[in-house]
Amino acid sequence: MVVNASIIFNEVPHGAPVPGKTLKRVEEELDVATVDLEGGLLVKMKAVSLDPYLRGRMRASSKASYNQAFALGKVIDTLGVGIVERSDHPDFPKGAILKGLLPYSEYALLSKARLDMKLAKVVEKPDGIAWTTMVGACGMPSATAWIGLYEIGRIKKGDTIFISAASGAVGQIAGQLAKREGLTVIGSAGSDEKVAFLKEIGYDHAFNYKTTSTQDFLEQHPPSVVFENVGGETLDAVLATIQNNGRIIHCGSVSQYNLPPDQQYGLKNTSNVVTKRLRWEGFIVSNHDWTEFDKTMPKLVANGEIKFKEHVTKGIDNGEAFLDMLEGRNFGKAVVSLE
Amino acid sequence: MVVNASIIFNEVPHGAPVPGKTLKRVEEELDVATVDLEGGLLVKMKAVSLDPYLRGRMRASSKASYNQAFALGKVIDTLGVGIVERSDHPDFPKGAILKGLLPYSEYALLSKARLDMKLAKVVEKPDGIAWTTMVGACGMPSATAWIGLYEIGRIKKGDTIFISAASGAVGQIAGQLAKREGLTVIGSAGSDEKVAFLKEIGYDHAFNYKTTSTQDFLEQHPPSVVFENVGGETLDAVLATIQNNGRIIHCGSVSQYNLPPDQQYGLKNTSNVVTKRLRWEGFIVSNHDWTEFDKTMPKLVANGEIKFKEHVTKGIDNGEAFLDMLEGRNFGKAVVSLE
Repeated sequence: MVVNASIIFNEVPHGAPVPGKTLKRVEEELDVATVDLEGGLLVKMKAVSLDPYLRGRMRASSKASYNQAFALGKVIDTLGVGIVERSDHPDFPKGAILKGLLPYSEYALLSKARLDMKLAKVVEKPDGIAWTTMVGACGMPSATAWIGLYEIGRIKKGDTIFISAASGAVGQIAGQLAKREGLTVIGSAGSDEKVAFLKEIGYDHAFNYKTTSTQDFLEQHPPSVVFENVGGETLDAVLATIQNNGRIIHCGSVSQYNLPPDQQYGLKNTSNVVTKRLRWEGFIVSNHDWTEFDKTMPKLVANGEIKFKEHVTKGIDNGEAFLDMLEGRNFGKAVVSLE
Repeated sequence: MVVNASIIFNEVPHGAPVPGKTLKRVEEELDVATVDLEGGLLVKMKAVSLDPYLRGRMRASSKASYNQAFALGKVIDTLGVGIVERSDHPDFPKGAILKGLLPYSEYALLSKARLDMKLAKVVEKPDGIAWTTMVGACGMPSATAWIGLYEIGRIKKGDTIFISAASGAVGQIAGQLAKREGLTVIGSAGSDEKVAFLKEIGYDHAFNYKTTSTQDFLEQHPPSVVFENVGGETLDAVLATIQNNGRIIHCGSVSQYNLPPDQQYGLKNTSNVVTKRLRWEGFIVSNHDWTEFDKTMPKLVANGEIKFKEHVTKGIDNGEAFLDMLEGRNFGKAVVSLE
């Protein structure tokens, strides 16, 4: 018998999620040796990923969006990695490493029906890579950086790219990949410490948006392509300063997710889409083909060509780690270690 | 000796242009028989085009934009057509028809230096087409509809397209071209008379945005592609209702051109660019290749396959016709006959 801790979606939040109310830690006793698998698996989870898009799933199930709302009272899921502890399913033998959309729990019982949805697959774990890195530097944010730069932004040598939330999970990888391709790379972040980190990983220019005006800085260094993670005022500054024929890779609007509809920032500079002939494109990484990324990224991480920073929380909490990530108090990719 | 009337840019406007102040009619005596051509041409202008983008050129010359500011005190130019009356230039013989960026005047003196900039070229005028139609249905707005639909929107059979300002110069052509390609076509306009016209030229659905909420209407008919001419609240309704993977062909923001910066509408729904994976793209028709358009459009107009409506003003005024066009009091493509 073990006590299995999980996080459930307890209540639809208005504005910012409240730890213990929106997300809530629950415990149940689980007999890992004898629990009936009914054709599925018992997985010992090793790490899960905390990402801003999860905020969007914390909504009433009646509200449609590009992803599924979390079910009230149920354990939430996110990108995770774990080891098959017991198996009733021939495709997932005991000891296999499973990666994909998995429960935010210490132990996960996966039904055969769920496995058939192919939300998770068996993967190799390269030597010397931590469990958290499997969902961190080799996880969804890095795939987002990859797809955004190559498929949406179609970056090319000579471009000047501005990356907002640059020390975040997506930004730190996007900047390094862009630098490898010969771009001039500019990043903004919310503290001097983060700015120093950006310079350390090869950003040509970096500034603290809390003490330096984004618009002023970009007027000095007008970007030809922008990897936009923030939305709101930052995006307005981007529209004001981006070069003619610029491209905006719109990846997220983290500054707006917690605001009620009547407090959403109103963008004033969208007429520039016409006058500057911009291409502004959104994307959802899960709709794109990761083959090239999956083939290349683990090697770059394993041989140290891509540096990364993780913000590791240990164990299951009441959603405090998620809120910290959402409000920018993490430094690097937010992951939870469940070892 | 003739009296040659022209319109000059007299004063930078704050908000809407004021007839007689912003634009002003001036007259000068011109000896058409003997005036020195200095290697250039004397052209009798036949028609000029009034277009919203001209508002953007009525700015202080210190303010950079995608096009050139009008020079204070000088005659403005716009797409026009005329006949060469006298020529000092071998490429432009007497009697040739000249079309392009030309002065808003009854008679135009074009220097050799100006001709070398190739802002206007010699064209054929098909039988049975009015002078105004040369700059109307065969002019820039139709080219804008063409490039927007085919190059930017990449329309395909089965798409549902929403066109704002649909009875305007661009919209009436865009709707008909889209219908020819097998799209479901929805248009909005500012009067019931305009709505009736839209249905007459083949729009599947049309509504008066002054009496019907754009957002409510589009919720009933969510578009997959949008030809956006209006900006502001209309564009916010588009972002709220457009289908996943939708494309926004951003052609203009006519609702915003006359507003000072602090009164620009603040768009609230731009996070949907990400969640709906939208592609939102602006373009300037003069940067695109018109070859295909120039080859096809005159035939469609000549054989009646494309219907069009012109709002013809006769002669040179103090800018009243321009203001009417900008504020939507015209019905169809605004042109000025100078015959």
